[in-house]
Amino acid sequence: MELANYLVERQTQVEDALTRFIALDGIPSELLPLRLVDAMRYSLLGGGKRLRPILTLAAAEAIQPDRAMDAMPFACAMECIHTYSLIHDDLPAMDDDDLRRGRPTNHVQFDEATAILAGDALLTLAFELCGRTPEHVPTGIVLKLVTLLSQAAGVSGMVGGQMLDLQAEHQSITLAQLKTIHGSKTGALIRCSCEAGARIAGGDTQQVASLSAYGTWLGLAFQIRDDLLDVLGDTQKLGKPIGSDEKNDKATYPKFLGLDGAKQAAEQAVTQALECLENFPGQRAEPLRELAR
Amino acid sequence: MELANYLVERQTQVEDALTRFIALDGIPSELLPLRLVDAMRYSLLGGGKRLRPILTLAAAEAIQPDRAMDAMPFACAMECIHTYSLIHDDLPAMDDDDLRRGRPTNHVQFDEATAILAGDALLTLAFELCGRTPEHVPTGIVLKLVTLLSQAAGVSGMVGGQMLDLQAEHQSITLAQLKTIHGSKTGALIRCSCEAGARIAGGDTQQVASLSAYGTWLGLAFQIRDDLLDVLGDTQKLGKPIGSDEKNDKATYPKFLGLDGAKQAAEQAVTQALECLENFPGQRAEPLRELAR
Repeated sequence: MELANYLVERQTQVEDALTRFIALDGIPSELLPLRLVDAMRYSLLGGGKRLRPILTLAAAEAIQPDRAMDAMPFACAMECIHTYSLIHDDLPAMDDDDLRRGRPTNHVQFDEATAILAGDALLTLAFELCGRTPEHVPTGIVLKLVTLLSQAAGVSGMVGGQMLDLQAEHQSITLAQLKTIHGSKTGALIRCSCEAGARIAGGDTQQVASLSAYGTWLGLAFQIRDDLLDVLGDTQKLGKPIGSDEKNDKATYPKFLGLDGAKQAAEQAVTQALECLENFPGQRAEPLRELAR
Repeated sequence: MELANYLVERQTQVEDALTRFIALDGIPSELLPLRLVDAMRYSLLGGGKRLRPILTLAAAEAIQPDRAMDAMPFACAMECIHTYSLIHDDLPAMDDDDLRRGRPTNHVQFDEATAILAGDALLTLAFELCGRTPEHVPTGIVLKLVTLLSQAAGVSGMVGGQMLDLQAEHQSITLAQLKTIHGSKTGALIRCSCEAGARIAGGDTQQVASLSAYGTWLGLAFQIRDDLLDVLGDTQKLGKPIGSDEKNDKATYPKFLGLDGAKQAAEQAVTQALECLENFPGQRAEPLRELAR
């Protein structure tokens, strides 16, 4: 298969769906604060790889290809969560970044109050989108998605990881602590994307566990690669200034393992991710395999 | 009935349940960022009237007294949403308040980054709590609660109302616009508290509609009273400086209607709320009646 074509096709589907959901049809226009909706759209539709929603769709596809589209509302929920976290992380009180995906960050383009509220609204919208899962998906599964998402995004997941990450600045931490931070800050959401896709498509316990584990390894590989890009990449490709981890005195995998060691760790994580897909022979899991590679 | 005793009893039950839920048992302690959990607890367990959760319990009670406790997880979810909104509203970029319920606001006690994340975590926890509704409540109803909550708290509800409220500062708005702002900023959540309680206890369509309408009127009465307290009250009773609306040049009901006019409007809203309870004879709806009075 051609991964690039697959990604473009899925990105287009995700962006069409996001555009539809963020149109907020059915809400009386006098109730819609336009500036807030503009700020939500600015960040949600402002580019990005759409990795998390694509993982959800690809995981559903690995179980049952004709059920992939059932996972679209949840896939978009994952992107809402990811986008809200970027808006809040970029705030002056947090990472204080002015540039994101090559454009001014939300609070620079609008203002701090609007950016805080746009993040809050996108986080809330994510849970509304869970409820838009097609009705033929059993309600018990949809309710389980709500729990999965809240745990992955909450105090023991992404938000907690961001707190640990902020606390770790200007402190010396161990490699184990770094793994904990990234496992919750970015790993939990990626794992959730994969597990949810498997559940929506009706995966059995074993399949759900395998795709969840795949997500854990992929998340680790993704984070190490992100750290490496911050050292090696260029601003244009990354959409943010390179060297910002160094500037902020952040602990990273290259700092602990060296450049070669970090590259090796990323490769090992990819190998582990691929092993989780061993019971998914044939074409169905090929997108997940290609994504890991 | 003795309303004061009822409120104290319910407040105690709610606070016990909140304390249990915020203990975050079952999460490995190395994954818990203590500072963040402290900040969540500081605001969630730092007093407050617990009006929204008590409304949820009282609405469930009006339908079926022995089902009231089924509504406790959702009742606590409402308090998480309310608390997160206070933390974010108090931030320097928003209302910039230093005092809340007689204590330093969250960002003063901790710091801005922690306050933003504590709000995010409480918002997320609210949806996790929806999923803790007892299993004998049909999953279809629980999923409906998630949708209700996300709509009441989101861009067309509370968050949207806060945005409209910020935009209205230093601008001249009409009474109709003020009603829209408060209807979404505070009204949507109060209505949701009542409607959800009715649904959890198995209310039929008519009962759910009546208690939802009760919530709408009660929310209006509550907001007018809040505006009046800002003019007439004292700092100790209010837990925040009086006259802050005046200071921030905010549109309020007393400004539009005068003090007497605002008092009259509040009384009318109470009368309407009581009318919504006409089909709930006897003791079951007495707490809701007393709350409105």
